[in-house]
Formats: sequence, structure tokens, C-alpha cells
Amino acid sequence: MRNSSRSKVDPFIVMDVMEAARKAEEQGRHIIHMEVGQPATGAPEAARRALSQALETDAMGYTVALGLPALRRRIAQLYGEWYNVDLNPERVVITPGSSGAFILSFTALFDSGDRVGIGAPGYPSYRQILSALGMQPVDIQTAPEHRLQPVAADIRDQNLAGLMVASPANPTGTMLDRPTLASLMDAAADEGASFISDEIYHGIEYEAKAVTALEISDEAYVINSFSKYFSMTGWRVGWMVVPEDHIRTVERIAQNMFICAPHASQVAALAAMDCHEELEANLAVYAKNRALMLEGLPKAGFTKIAPPDGAFYVYADVSDLTNDSRSFAAEVLEKAGVAVTPGLDFDPARGATTLRFSYARSTADIEEGLARLKTFMEGRR
Amino acid sequence: MRNSSRSKVDPFIVMDVMEAARKAEEQGRHIIHMEVGQPATGAPEAARRALSQALETDAMGYTVALGLPALRRRIAQLYGEWYNVDLNPERVVITPGSSGAFILSFTALFDSGDRVGIGAPGYPSYRQILSALGMQPVDIQTAPEHRLQPVAADIRDQNLAGLMVASPANPTGTMLDRPTLASLMDAAADEGASFISDEIYHGIEYEAKAVTALEISDEAYVINSFSKYFSMTGWRVGWMVVPEDHIRTVERIAQNMFICAPHASQVAALAAMDCHEELEANLAVYAKNRALMLEGLPKAGFTKIAPPDGAFYVYADVSDLTNDSRSFAAEVLEKAGVAVTPGLDFDPARGATTLRFSYARSTADIEEGLARLKTFMEGRR
Repeated sequence: MRNSSRSKVDPFIVMDVMEAARKAEEQGRHIIHMEVGQPATGAPEAARRALSQALETDAMGYTVALGLPALRRRIAQLYGEWYNVDLNPERVVITPGSSGAFILSFTALFDSGDRVGIGAPGYPSYRQILSALGMQPVDIQTAPEHRLQPVAADIRDQNLAGLMVASPANPTGTMLDRPTLASLMDAAADEGASFISDEIYHGIEYEAKAVTALEISDEAYVINSFSKYFSMTGWRVGWMVVPEDHIRTVERIAQNMFICAPHASQVAALAAMDCHEELEANLAVYAKNRALMLEGLPKAGFTKIAPPDGAFYVYADVSDLTNDSRSFAAEVLEKAGVAVTPGLDFDPARGATTLRFSYARSTADIEEGLARLKTFMEGRR
Repeated sequence: MRNSSRSKVDPFIVMDVMEAARKAEEQGRHIIHMEVGQPATGAPEAARRALSQALETDAMGYTVALGLPALRRRIAQLYGEWYNVDLNPERVVITPGSSGAFILSFTALFDSGDRVGIGAPGYPSYRQILSALGMQPVDIQTAPEHRLQPVAADIRDQNLAGLMVASPANPTGTMLDRPTLASLMDAAADEGASFISDEIYHGIEYEAKAVTALEISDEAYVINSFSKYFSMTGWRVGWMVVPEDHIRTVERIAQNMFICAPHASQVAALAAMDCHEELEANLAVYAKNRALMLEGLPKAGFTKIAPPDGAFYVYADVSDLTNDSRSFAAEVLEKAGVAVTPGLDFDPARGATTLRFSYARSTADIEEGLARLKTFMEGRR
């Protein structure tokens, strides 16, 4: 049997780092994990308790494709709480993680060969999923002066069927402010490109609140998840808000492609939405870790960094240190015992001179990691 | 925003039945559900208990993309227990339900426009997912004398890139015996068509054991799930066995498209695999229900049925009663208070003269449903 052309997906380079880290740990070394993109914390306690209770009484059969009505209503309510946006719960689609929402949105909006703009650097799976669906990802090379986010001028005359943005972004943590987001949405509309806003890191912000595309227009697909702020990565539950006249189409695709998001995860997610105290405590840890990173990374010699507005990553330009981020990351792991992600996963063109540092783990780990990085860099001079 | 062409997915006609049933129940009527394709039972008790315990201690982060190693090993062991097949656990991929396995297998094997043969009647989502991925489903009109399963002659010179079969099949419950399955696999190989075997109803068999494609050749994708025999529909966890030289490709697609199957569901699934007593008790209910159906349906006037080998459906030819199964099903619901599925979902060409009866619910429901059907049919004479 032959594999398809569309199945030729690039490997994640970070996987090599993770495998090397695992082997080092097997040999008894202690590794600090600054490569991971997930919270160290589990689902909020009340979420786990709600599920344990439901397990006693609920058969956990299929839910309807669009998700548990109570969860859809609660998410609509969140848009009131977070953004003062009045959202019709019918427009909320519960998805198997944001991954499921990417598949659903791309399928609902684009055909084979369609060109879809994505920012570089950006989340690698945008590119890979688009390719796997037979579409054409178009990397938009973003500029440091735009804090590595696309701007309206970048997308003109590119024959794009769609534009996907993320704010706060992975790997940079930078956000699109309201005027920039609005101008991107206008430009996309002018080009006839559907607009998708990945808002998975909303709730994890440090200076200003993130802006949702729904504050600007209803003509967008908005994607979010319980994996980051709500600390429920392995549960595979997220959501998508779609324009009213797209609900039926998305419902039919979801019925066929997914049947529904995991029922148990939906039950836990609903309870998680009221765990303010625990979630804000998680956020306080990220904020403290971020402050440590912004102080410690330059001291260690990683000076070309921009303060992240949100998420839990720092993206560093290391062009003064290496032009091979992959072997540099291997050296950092080997000599410092710190796992970091080479930029190549996020930006195939320019990632050979960048690294992503995650500060999603415990503060003790961040402190230890920064100390190790400082010692390592001093040894390199 | 416009929707894509590939998003033009046919609606499930059974959804209209379900909505009408829901409305009738809202108005106080009692409806017997012979339209549903899922067990009435929940996950086995030990599975729920295992999850409750794990919730206390496990953060339930992402698992690796291919799934929990212990679950992959246990599934490989199942192939020894059920089929005496010695299976390398590395070939087992844990998926978000069989739905996820369809998406993964189609993506790994086929490109835009590729023609993929599927039996008609068959599970409607095969067709819809293929279309949503930009591929071309090719309905193979199966014959009653072949118990509505494709045979080798059906797939010659059709320019197929792939062939998908299901045994036991939905909606018919018929199985492919070993020689027929082997000849289909040979014919597919001759045609250069990749072979996919949907074995989701394995374990729910009444006369003979179902044959897995892996007994015949390793050159096939085999799909199964915890939704049917293991009674875990809403958990969205299934698996796929792939040839050894396809593991890395499938892993990369899974990493990008799904990240992983739901962690909590994987924990529950692993425990479910040792709940023999409870699962065999479920099976005994299906067996009893099947006997009731095979006796009661002909008595009620549904005489053109073939005894199902497995699953929990009876597919009836009702061409002597109607040439509009949709309105006939509406009439059965309205007058008999029994929800059934019109055949059009499974066979767009010939389903106007067929109905699917599910016997997945309790025996009391089946008895009551059969009595109602008999009274209804007597009133029609």
C-alpha cells in the first residue's frame, strides 16, 4: 500500500528533543522541561469531582453533535463575562479540542487547493492540517516590528481563500490589539478570504485583555479550547463560534466527522468554567514565571526577546548565538539539562535562528532552568 | 463568508425521525427507540471506577499521539485472544473513536479526487467524510444474494484507490466470511486499491466469530472502537491497526490532526477490556433481542429480512409496503410510537424501500416495540 501525497507531514522537530530528554531521564539525569506546550496542572478539582459524580449516574452516550446544551450556554455566557459580547449559544459548537475545530473550520470553508494564509512563526499544525486536507498553507512572513503578527498589507493580492490568526500567538505570546485585528479582518473581507481567529490562549494574559474577533464582527470563525486557561489538555474538548448561517453546515460535518466531542470531557469542562479561584491561581504562577523569564533570559545571554502579552512562551532570536537552532537545542539539553524547542517547527524559513522557551511548569522548575541556562551560557563564552 | 463545496454534506434523514420522536416525547407520548445506533448500557462499572480513581492522581495531560502504551499492548493481546493473531503493539494506533480512524486512514492513503469504494447500503459517514476530505466515494451496489456485501467482481476496473468494507455491517448486520473477505482483499490488491476493514461491531456476533482482515494479510488498515462491544460510545475512543511501514506516517498525521485521543477515555477503555462478565451480559441481551426480532418482525409483516450475523440491526426490505421509506418511517412513529430509520441514509439509490430496526435497547423495549409494530401493521391492512 502506498501513502497519499497529502500524508507527507513534516515531523515535529521538538519530538527529537523530547525523545532525547526522555532518554536522558532514563539514564538518571534531571531535565527541566521548557519545551512542553501544556500546563503542569490538571483539570480543576471541581471539574474532576463533577465527572466522578456523573460517572455514577450517566451512561455517557453520544451527545448531540454540537455538544451539551448547558455547556454551549455557559460558553456563550463567558463571552459576556470576558468581552461584554452578547452571544447566541446556538452559534457555539463543542469540538474535540481546538484540533477538531481546525478540521471543522477548514472543511467548512475551504476546498482542495485553496490558499490559506497563516502567520510564520505559528503553530505548526495549522500548516500540517491544511496540507493533510488537500489545501495549501501560505506562510506569511511576519516582521519583528509587528511583533511577529501579520498585518493587513501582508495579505493583499495573495489570492487567499482564508486567513488564520492567533492572539496570543504560539510561539511568541504576542497579541493583536483591537485596531490591528480589525484591519486584518477588513483586509480579509476585501480579499474575499474567510477569517479564522485562534483564541486558545485567551484568559492567559498579563498586561491587557485579549480581544476576540467577535467584538469586531460576527463574520468570523472563532476557535478556543479548554486545554490552556482551563488546564484540560488531555481531555480534548474545545469550542468554535461560527456565523449563524454556518451552524447547520458545521453541524452536519461534525455529525459525520466526529459524532460528538467526548461526553465525559464535556461534563468536566462545564464544571471547570466555574473554578475561578483555582484557575486564577494557575494564572498567578504563569505571571510569576513570566517575570522570572523576562529577567533571567537576558541575564543568561538571550537578549533578543519581546515580552509576551499572553500564553506561556518566550520566543527568542538567537541569531547571534547560532544559525542551527536544532543542534543548539540539542547542546542546551546535553550540557544544561534544559529541553527547549528549536524555532524550525514554527517557522521553516527563519526558525534556524530562534528558540521557544515555555514557562508553563512550576516556578521552581523555571528558577532552576534559568540558573542552568545562565551557567551553560557562561561556559560557552 | 462562503462555505466550501466539500462542506455540502447530506443531512442524516434519521435526524428528522429523532427530532420528531423528541417532540412526541415532549408532548407526553411514549416512544420506543429502534432508530438509535448505540447501546443503552454505559461503560462497564470497572471502567468507570478505574477512571474515578485515576482522576485523584493523574493530571490527564496529553498522551503520546499513538496512545497509552499499556492500552496499545492490551489491544494487541486482544487480537491473540479473539483471533489467535500475533500483533505487534507498535502497529496499534489509539484514535478518537472510529470516526478519528476514518479521518486518519483516508488522509494517510488517499489524495484529492481519489475514488474510494464503499458498500451500499453502508454507514453514511464513510461517504460524507470522504467527500469532506475532497475524495470521491464510489457506492458499490451490493446484492441481496451476497447478503448486501460487496464481492470481488464488484470492484474490478473501477479505478479505485481504496476499498472500505464493514463486517458485521451497519445497517445489515451481515458478515464477510473468510473466503469472501480474502477474495476482496486479493481483488483490491490486484486493482492497486488500499484495503480498509471496519470491524467496529466485532465482539457482537451470534452464530460465528467475525474474521479480522489481519487473519488474512498485514497489508490492510483495520478499524475498531470501544463504542459497541465495550459499550463506550460517548467516550470517543477507538483504534486502528496499520501496516508496520505506515506507523510513522499515521503518527505524524495524528500528532497534527488530533494531538491524542481523550486521555480519560483511554484510561477507562483499558479497564473495560477486562470486564468480560458485564460485556458478555450485554451481549446476551442483544442475542435475546435478536431472537425476538427475528420472530416478531415477520409476524408483524416485515417478512423480507435476513438474519443478522452480528451488530444490533435488522435491515428490512419494505418494497412491498412502500416506495417512500421516509414517510413510512414518519407514519410508524406517528401511529405506532416506534422510531425507526429510513434506509435512505445508508443507500441513497435504493433506500426508499428499506428500513433499519435497531435492537440495541432493553429487551422490554424490544418486546413492546414489536407488539406496537404488529398492531400498527394489522391496522394498515
